[in-house]
Parts: sequence; C-alpha cells; structure tokens
Amino acid sequence: MASNQNVADMNQARARSSTDPEKLQVFLWGGDREWPRKRSIVSILSGDTVFDKARRSFLTRTQMYQRALAMTKRLFELKDQHDWTSDEVNLAVKLIDEPLPIVLHNAAFEPVVSSQGSPEIKKQFGELIAQRGIIGCYLQTELGHGTNVAALETTATYIPETREFELHSPTVTSSKWWVGALGKTATHGVVQARLILPSGKDVGPHLFFVQLRSLEDHRTLPGITVGDIGPKAMAGYAGIDNGYARFDHVRIPREYMLSAFASVTPDGQYVQPPHAKLSYAGMMYIRSTMVISGGWTIAKGEGATIAIRYATVRRQGNKGPNGLEQQVITYPSVYIRLLPALARAYVFILLGRNLGKAFSDMSSRLATGDTSLLAEMHATTSGLKSLVSTAAIEDLETARRSMGGHGFSDFAGVGRIYADYLPGATFEGDNFVLDQQVVRAALKAYDALVVRKTRSISGLTPSTAYLRSLAEVTPSLSAASRGWTDPHTAIVLLERRAAAMVQDRAKHASEPDASSDHRVARAVTDAFVGAQVGEINRDLERSVGGHEASVLKNVYLLYLLTSVERGLVDIVSFNLLPEQATSEVRSDPARSLRMAIKNLCEELLPEAIGLTDGFGFNDWELDSALGRYDGNAYEELWKRTQMEPLNRTEVPDGYEEYIKPLLVRGQRLAGRSKL
Amino acid sequence: MASNQNVADMNQARARSSTDPEKLQVFLWGGDREWPRKRSIVSILSGDTVFDKARRSFLTRTQMYQRALAMTKRLFELKDQHDWTSDEVNLAVKLIDEPLPIVLHNAAFEPVVSSQGSPEIKKQFGELIAQRGIIGCYLQTELGHGTNVAALETTATYIPETREFELHSPTVTSSKWWVGALGKTATHGVVQARLILPSGKDVGPHLFFVQLRSLEDHRTLPGITVGDIGPKAMAGYAGIDNGYARFDHVRIPREYMLSAFASVTPDGQYVQPPHAKLSYAGMMYIRSTMVISGGWTIAKGEGATIAIRYATVRRQGNKGPNGLEQQVITYPSVYIRLLPALARAYVFILLGRNLGKAFSDMSSRLATGDTSLLAEMHATTSGLKSLVSTAAIEDLETARRSMGGHGFSDFAGVGRIYADYLPGATFEGDNFVLDQQVVRAALKAYDALVVRKTRSISGLTPSTAYLRSLAEVTPSLSAASRGWTDPHTAIVLLERRAAAMVQDRAKHASEPDASSDHRVARAVTDAFVGAQVGEINRDLERSVGGHEASVLKNVYLLYLLTSVERGLVDIVSFNLLPEQATSEVRSDPARSLRMAIKNLCEELLPEAIGLTDGFGFNDWELDSALGRYDGNAYEELWKRTQMEPLNRTEVPDGYEEYIKPLLVRGQRLAGRSKL
Repeated sequence: MASNQNVADMNQARARSSTDPEKLQVFLWGGDREWPRKRSIVSILSGDTVFDKARRSFLTRTQMYQRALAMTKRLFELKDQHDWTSDEVNLAVKLIDEPLPIVLHNAAFEPVVSSQGSPEIKKQFGELIAQRGIIGCYLQTELGHGTNVAALETTATYIPETREFELHSPTVTSSKWWVGALGKTATHGVVQARLILPSGKDVGPHLFFVQLRSLEDHRTLPGITVGDIGPKAMAGYAGIDNGYARFDHVRIPREYMLSAFASVTPDGQYVQPPHAKLSYAGMMYIRSTMVISGGWTIAKGEGATIAIRYATVRRQGNKGPNGLEQQVITYPSVYIRLLPALARAYVFILLGRNLGKAFSDMSSRLATGDTSLLAEMHATTSGLKSLVSTAAIEDLETARRSMGGHGFSDFAGVGRIYADYLPGATFEGDNFVLDQQVVRAALKAYDALVVRKTRSISGLTPSTAYLRSLAEVTPSLSAASRGWTDPHTAIVLLERRAAAMVQDRAKHASEPDASSDHRVARAVTDAFVGAQVGEINRDLERSVGGHEASVLKNVYLLYLLTSVERGLVDIVSFNLLPEQATSEVRSDPARSLRMAIKNLCEELLPEAIGLTDGFGFNDWELDSALGRYDGNAYEELWKRTQMEPLNRTEVPDGYEEYIKPLLVRGQRLAGRSKL
Repeated sequence: MASNQNVADMNQARARSSTDPEKLQVFLWGGDREWPRKRSIVSILSGDTVFDKARRSFLTRTQMYQRALAMTKRLFELKDQHDWTSDEVNLAVKLIDEPLPIVLHNAAFEPVVSSQGSPEIKKQFGELIAQRGIIGCYLQTELGHGTNVAALETTATYIPETREFELHSPTVTSSKWWVGALGKTATHGVVQARLILPSGKDVGPHLFFVQLRSLEDHRTLPGITVGDIGPKAMAGYAGIDNGYARFDHVRIPREYMLSAFASVTPDGQYVQPPHAKLSYAGMMYIRSTMVISGGWTIAKGEGATIAIRYATVRRQGNKGPNGLEQQVITYPSVYIRLLPALARAYVFILLGRNLGKAFSDMSSRLATGDTSLLAEMHATTSGLKSLVSTAAIEDLETARRSMGGHGFSDFAGVGRIYADYLPGATFEGDNFVLDQQVVRAALKAYDALVVRKTRSISGLTPSTAYLRSLAEVTPSLSAASRGWTDPHTAIVLLERRAAAMVQDRAKHASEPDASSDHRVARAVTDAFVGAQVGEINRDLERSVGGHEASVLKNVYLLYLLTSVERGLVDIVSFNLLPEQATSEVRSDPARSLRMAIKNLCEELLPEAIGLTDGFGFNDWELDSALGRYDGNAYEELWKRTQMEPLNRTEVPDGYEEYIKPLLVRGQRLAGRSKL
C-alpha cells in the first residue's frame, strides 16, 4: 500500500460526509462569535514559534517547566498585542494542550479571592491578581489528606493581641502537597487551614491569603518551606510545578482571612457562614468546568478526531475487489468502540455548556444570599464530574488501543492527552467519594417523596426527576409501540433503572453491597443526562437546524442507546427491558438493543469524519501523527521519527562502553575470536 | 496524624495476617527451589549500584536506553561471577522492572532460530546466540501492518542463480517498525517477509535470518536503513530501542531461510510446511508467557502489593474511638476494587504456570511432528492473552486510582508499571483480533457437537468443555442446594453462560451484533478459567496445605464470584441466575451474589497484607514510595521529592527570563511600580 493511499482515503471519507463542518463548529463552540474567536486564537498560537510542539517529545521535565513559563510569558505579550480580553486569555490557556502553572491562578486563586476575599484584600490585591502582577496558587490538599477537607491538619490560630493569624504545619503529613504552581512559580497563595479561635476552639477549615515568595527576588519568605513534589506518573503534567509547603508559625494580618462568608472579629469571635457548603462553591465551579473539558478531551484524543481519522486511513485484513485491505473503521469491533465515544464528546460538550450557564445562575443568586440552588448544583456537579472524567479516561485508552501498536507511540498523541487528563479522576473530589454524595442526595429525595411524602412528583428537581417513574402504572415499555429508534424509549429506561435502583438501595439502606454506591450513582447520573440529552435533541432544529440536525439526532440517540447498554445489567436484573416480557428462554433479550446500536453505527459511519471535523481542531492542536487532517499518517510518523535524539548518530553512545564488551565476551565464549 | 502511624498500621496489619508468607511465596514461585533462587537473584541485583533506581525518575530517554545497556552488560558479568544458568539470567531480566533490549533476543530471536533454523544456521550461529556474541531482534510488524501477518509487504525473492534471497522493502509502509532492540542495539535479526519463488509465485510470509550491523564497528550494513522509532506513550518502554528497518535489495544466502518447517530447494522449488499454524508457535509461546507475567504485574502494582499496602496505612474520613481516621482499605468502595484484583493475580500466576507446562508438552510433541495440540493451544493462549492483558491494564489503573491523588505521583510506582505494561493489549496479537479467533474456535466446536454431531460430550477439549452444559437437563442451579460459598456454583454458571452465548451466537451467525466477538470470547475464556480455578482449588491441600490452603480457597472463590459478577449482564439475560426463578418483581436477583462478594472480601480483609507479602516483592522490586514494606509511605514521598532536579535551586532557572518580566508587567498595569 502506498502511503498516499492514506490521503486518498481521507479525501474520500471527507467527500462522503454530508454535514457542513462549520455549522457543527458553530454549534459546538456555542455561537457565531465563539467559534471564529477560537479559530483566530488558535491561528495566532499555532503560528508562533514559542508554541511550536515539534521537539517537546524529547524534553526533560525541567525543560517542560521552562517551556511552560516561556509560553505563559508569551501569552501575555500576545494579549497586549492583540488586545485579548481575560476570557480570551483563559481560552488561549485552554487551547494550549500543556497544563501551565498559570491555570491555577485562573481557575482557583483568582475566583476564590474575588468571591470570598475581604474588601481590604480585594482593594490591595484585586488589580494585581487581575493583571498577574502576582501569581497565585490554591493550597488545599495535604500530604496526608485529600478529598476529606474536614480532616486537614494545617492550622490558622487567631492571635487577638496582634490581630494576626498564625499559619502552622504541625506534622509532616500536614505539608500542603500537589499544589499547582506552588513548587517554583507562585508568589502568593490561598491556604485552607483549620481556624483555631483564641478560646482554643477549632471551627474547621477556612481560607487564608498568604504571600509565599518575595516580589524582589522570588526567594521564599521566612518560615515557609516550599519545593516541587517531583515528576508525575507517565510524564503527565510535566509543565506544572506541583509543590509542597510547610508553614512554621507564619503570621498574616487578620484581613488575610477570606471572610466573605465567615470571619473573625478583631477580638476573636467567630462569625458563622450563612450556608455550610458555601465555601465549597470554588471546587464546585472547577468540577462544573470539568464536564465540558472532559467532552473536549474525548473529542480530541478519542472517539473523536485522532482515533477516527487513523481508523479511516488505516487498512488491515482481507483485500477487497479494489485490491486494498479493509479500512479499519469499518470493522464492527472498531466502530462499536469509537462512534459511541464520539457521541459522548458531543453530549458532554453541550452538557458542560448548559452546566456553565446553570452555574452562573447559581452564582448570581448566591451573591444575593440565595442558597436555594446550592444543594442541587452540588449533587449534579458531583455526579457529572465522576461520570465524565471516568468516561473520558476510559475512552482515551479505548482510542489508544483502537489504533493498534502505533497507539503506543508518543507521536500518536493520545498517550500525552491521557497522562495529562488522568488526575481528573482523583482531583477535585475522588470519583468514588463523589459517588457517595450522589447516593446521599438520591436517598434524601426518595425519602422525601416516598417515605415522608414531604415532596410531590411535581416538586422534583432536574437531578431527581427520574423518581417520577415510581408513580407510573405500567411496569414496562412496550417495545412495539416505541422501539429503539425513538429516544424516548432509552430515556424512560434510564429513569426507570435509576428509580428501581434507588428504591432497592433504600430497602437495603442498612446493608448495601460494596459496589452499590458506584452503581447507584451512575444510574442516577445517567438518568439525569438522559433527560438532558432529550432536551438537547428537541432543541436541535433551533440550535443547528437543517440536515445537520438530523445527523446529530442520530449521534444523540447513539449516546442514549449505549448508555442503556452500559447499564444493562441493572435494567435486565430489574426486568425493565421491553423484550423481557415476551422473550423465549435461552434467547438474549438485549439483542434488539445491540442490533439497533449496530445499525445506528453503520448509518453514522459515513458521517464520522465530518463529525470529527465538526470539533474544529487543527493539526497544531492535535499534535498527532496519526490524526493528521489530511490523513497522511505514515509519512508523518516517519518524519517525526527522524527527530529522535537517538538517531543523531549511527552508532549509539554506549556502544564502546556496553555493547561491544558484551559482544566480545559472547564471541570469546562461543570460541569465535573473529567472525 | 504523625507519619510513623503508617509504620504502626503496617505492623499491626502484618500481625493480623494468619498466613505464613514463605509458604505462599514457595507456592506462587512454584517450589522449594524456585523461590530461594528468585530471592537470591533479587538480593544480588538490588545490592548492585548499576541496578539502583533512585535517580531513574529524572533521566531522559537517551539516558534510560544507556542505563538499559549498562544493566545488560552488568547482568552478564553477574552471570559469570555467580555461574548463573541461562534460565537464571532470563529470570534476572524479568526481575529488572525496566524492559531491556536483550529481552527480544531471549524471548523471540533465540527461540525462533533454535526451533526453526536450518542445521547450517544453528551450526554457524547457535553458540554465538546462546552466548550473546551476537544480539538479535525479531522483525515482524511493519509501519502499515500489525497483527495481520498475511498482509506484510516485505519480500524475500529467491534468486536460483546465486542461491540467495533478496530482501526488499518496496514501500514506506513496508518498513519494519516497532522492532525491539533494532533501533540501535541488535547485530542480527529474523525478518518476516513474503517468500517470492522464481516463478513469481508469492507463498506468503516466512522467516529469514539477516545480519544488520557490522561486528567490527556496529555500523549498519549496506542496503539497510535502521533507526529508532522515537519515544513511546507515557514514557513507557524507555530503555528499549524499538526500531525501524528498510531493506534495499539485500542479499542473504539460501541457508538463512529458517527452514525447519518450510524451505526452498536450490533450484527454487517450495517445500510445504507440515502444518499451517506451525510458524506461529513462536508468537503463541510469547502469548503463553504473557499470562504469568500479567499475573505478576497485577501482583506488583495492583490489587496487590502497592495499592493494598498504601490503602492499609492511608487514613481518611471519620475519626474512630482511637482518634484516628479510618484506614482506607476498610472502605467497601476500596476493598471491592483491590481484593478481586489480588485474587486475579493469584489466579493468573497459577494459570500461567500451568500454561507453561502445557506449552512445553505441545512443543515436545511438535518436535516429533505431532500437531494435534496446536489448535487447542492456539485457542487457549489467544483467549487467555486477551483476558489477562485486558484485566491487568484495568487493574493497574484501578490500583492507581484507589490511591487517590498520590497515585498520580511518579513515586507511587504504578504509573511506570502501567506505561511499560500497556503495549501488552495490542502486541503479540491485538486483543480484539484474538477475540475473533476464540469465537471461531468456539463456533467450530459447537458445530461439531450440536450440528454435525461429529464430536461427543466426552470428546470435548478443556477449552470447549463448557459445551457440556448444553446437554444438562435442569435449566438452572438451585441456589438453596449449592449457594455462593461453593465454588461449583460459580463454575457451573460460567460454563452455562458460555454455552448459552455460543449457542445464541451460532443462531445469529450471519448477523452478530457489533460487540458480540468480544463478549462471547470473554464468556468462553471465563468458563475455561473457571474450570481451571476449580482444579487449582482442589489441589490446594496438596500444593500448599494447612491454614494457607483454606485462606487461598477464599481467594480463589473471590476470583470466581467476581468473574460471575463481571459476566452478570449475560447471565441475567439468559435467565441463568438461581434467584431469577423465584425473585419478586423490582428486586435485584444479583443481590445475594454481591453480598456474598462483600462478605468474602470482609473475611479476607485481615489477610490482605499477608497475601501481598506472599508475592515476595522487596522494596527494590516495587520501587514505590507508597508501597514500602514497612508502610512508611509519607516519609518516603518526602525523601524522594528532595531529589527532584527543580529543587536544586531556590529560585528556578527561568525566573529572570520569564517569571520576573511577567510580574513586572502585571505590577505596571496594576499601577504598582513597587509593592
């Protein structure tokens, strides 16, 4: 097979697609202004040598960190040059596919100071923070404590005499750990510490503003020990200086407590926060943004662009009448893995945008003291963060594996995306801990509706709406009337599954099995997402319209059907599948669902390249030899290989020292002094 | 929490374990001679500075390659010094947890030349190969072709005039690719190439011996272009120089064809091989060894040692009466992930050893021309390779994630094991392609038994024994009579599931759904493994005996029950679960199974540390801060962090160039020339 067959295959696939990529791009990016703005920023970044990616595969971690600094500095030069807004700078940071230390300033430090800082803090530091005249980090996790914030060991003791707090790390395990940008970069930080009142009373974790390094020479301030925590697994997050910090009786002024929701009076009296969960809003915000970023991650590495493009140009197996082997994407075992992931990307991106809107909504209410949406937002973001990050990690590995051996090359690009995305499963709330939160909220809603009857069906919130199916009379859907091509069938099944499982869980509340939290949380979140997808679907005529709307309906249907298939064990166990009423013994009642998925995949197959083009990534963004836009995968692999440092010399360093003596020894033992 | 609480927790956990680690070690390593031999080699390696691992987290790939060479050279010095046999050298290579270029010589080059080489080749090179006077590699995969060997493009054309073969790479995509040790190390290789007869007839891929580099100066021989293919994903396989090679009409003597099973006469006539699959025996051998190595991989990173040790010393959550937070291992959501993986390690190691014996058996028969065991071995190794490598990758990531945020530190050690193990899913036969082989064999057996009736129940081979359940009269197990504590219940269910699925698949042979191959293959292999575990179980009194036998019975039961749980969707769909006959509507029939798993896990919990000690890893082998034998996880993390190159200076390189200008700009814009 000549390698330009790759290009021919890609051209042909692109010609077969019936959608207009630009319509999809505008749809996914959220509007006529958003998409061109994104494209313009990518065009500036990808044309700038500072952001060139050609040699980064060969850099050490120290070099990757310096590269991240260089990119950060350049970013603000570009901001000044192109007059970018801070939203545009934040977008640019996201579009650079290497985590930068400044991310923590943008996503955690700035929002938390701005939403919870005292007026004094905002006056003194607000503009400096906005302009990056200081760089901040967020010191929460400790060496010995992660998700369980309540058990943090760092203390902030109020000293009424001097009106100061004293930050202190009493143990090795109380060292702040994993803090992004703390290791070498940040000048300031917000520290979570247990507030100790003059009475000795411990009122739990609160946030404190602290300067870490001198603005004169960047040296660490007295009493503070900081450093980098070392390399991350699989070379992930290389550009970020995740760091540690210990505080040895470090004093900060009383005003440095972030006191919008809780404060200490000058004489040391504690003033209560209006809502217990209020200080978690910051983490909730980060979690909510993880839904859309998970969607874009899958879009990039996965089901999505790289894997589908390579599966389109890669040929393996039996030769067809044209003398060419079969395109890998046409194998059921391949498309059944990639197309559902493509659908997940389309769902999570939209879901993420909706969640973003809901979050702003909640924030404006919070600003007026209205906390009514907080609990619902907590349950929703917990469930979605766990669902999306788990799915994204799984899909990335599925994508990598679908590419066969070459998926293991660094040049394939998916390994890098995977390694950088991986911590998403455990940071901002370990997924298994979040599952518990989801189950707790579900049981509470069930109790209010069914046991205590303090809430009615009409009073159910979106995250508990699935409970309405408990009130339905008919126990099962009629397959004949609806069928799998109607999204309603899947949506109802997902709701019934969630309701049945929550009910069963409530029944066995005192003795759940060991995987119950995980399964119940997934069912509840699947039901919520199912209903959301139903709404996105109904809105398609308006939001995208035309032929694209009808293709996207199939994409969203595929999401729903595969979501049912993933939850099948519980659906079948609770006897909810339409076919279970009628099917014969020793015949698989799930066959019609699986065949519907297969047929839908085959219908979508000619659209796959168009749908991935719809994400709108350029080659600089993907940085993948296998996922090139033009399909020229093998030639690009060859080209990149020529840059490998080991190939600089014909005979490797180490030949004289190691290889030659080994061979000479073996030749001597084999009785051959000369060959 | 003081950090030496870690050590106290580990000591206490160890004291609670009721098994004798040495008995388990002898059992797992296969005997009274094997275990001390392994321990002695580890003791030599871990005491040698060449194998020290302290700084490897900070090396570049070029340095990792040189490190691999240095270790290889030292290995043979140690062999001479300690008079190691070649089995002992191979064991030492396995015990070094970095892939070495010599691995390909040991696992592929040497066996294939010795089993298929002509007498001339063996005479000329046999002793040189044995003594490593030459270093070999195995050139199969091409840039454009992987698992589908039949489509390889490299040609070997026989030239009767000079009695030579001409090796040629006609296209870019025919470049040999991924070949371990080819990039910079190997002097010789075995090449898979399509044999073209003088008549022009193409008789498909055959093996040819070729010299690649000069033994004088290691320079590449004329007509050959070689190089390294570049870094691998997630920094995996860093020490191996996976390479590419192109041949430009390279001539080799007629005797260089590996001709034990097929050959060309001097005048160019082709002599047929006795069995079509014979030349695949090499890959089958590698696949068969992947079962035991998968087991040891899980044992190390997973369910096993590192994750269980860290979960034992890590405390999170509510404080108990002793004022300490709860040990993480006691959370159901944690032990339900780790203990089944521990059980998988115990199963796969034993299974791998049995397979090793079966393989030797088959090989001795093959040597006499008896190919009767070949098809069975092919089906078995295909299914097991796919099952074990898929499970090991999943378990490694499960383990990493169970450790929370710290699992993402390179110092945790699991990421490295993962990155190096990852290609196992796609090399030596892509798992999804292997699934198809398993299904093909299953359908053939079903056809012979049920349709054509050419085989009887008593004539079923071990890999198809599950079909016996088709002849059973009773459609479901009585839960009351057997129950989940009897391994027989799970084994029978796994067999019935496989039989029902194969039958259903045969019924829909012309139109299987898209994931059918994968699900049917898994069911068939699960049934085979279930029966094997039953035999291992029955043998425990003899093989290990005493109290340890009764603990291991529970470990093997846990494997069986979780294997049923993983196959539950099909078991429930085919109505096979005992409870399905009697259970009420809207009650989960799988609850009794899941509660049995939970109870079994809780029973095994106090044994977990003892069972991981039973694998017999020392700290050098694990190289994990979190998996230390003494439990001192946090102090070790701190210690390793101090070696990070970024921590050498207080102010990082790059401050003056990047950070300072950024801060100065921001301060200027914020209107603060000085703070």
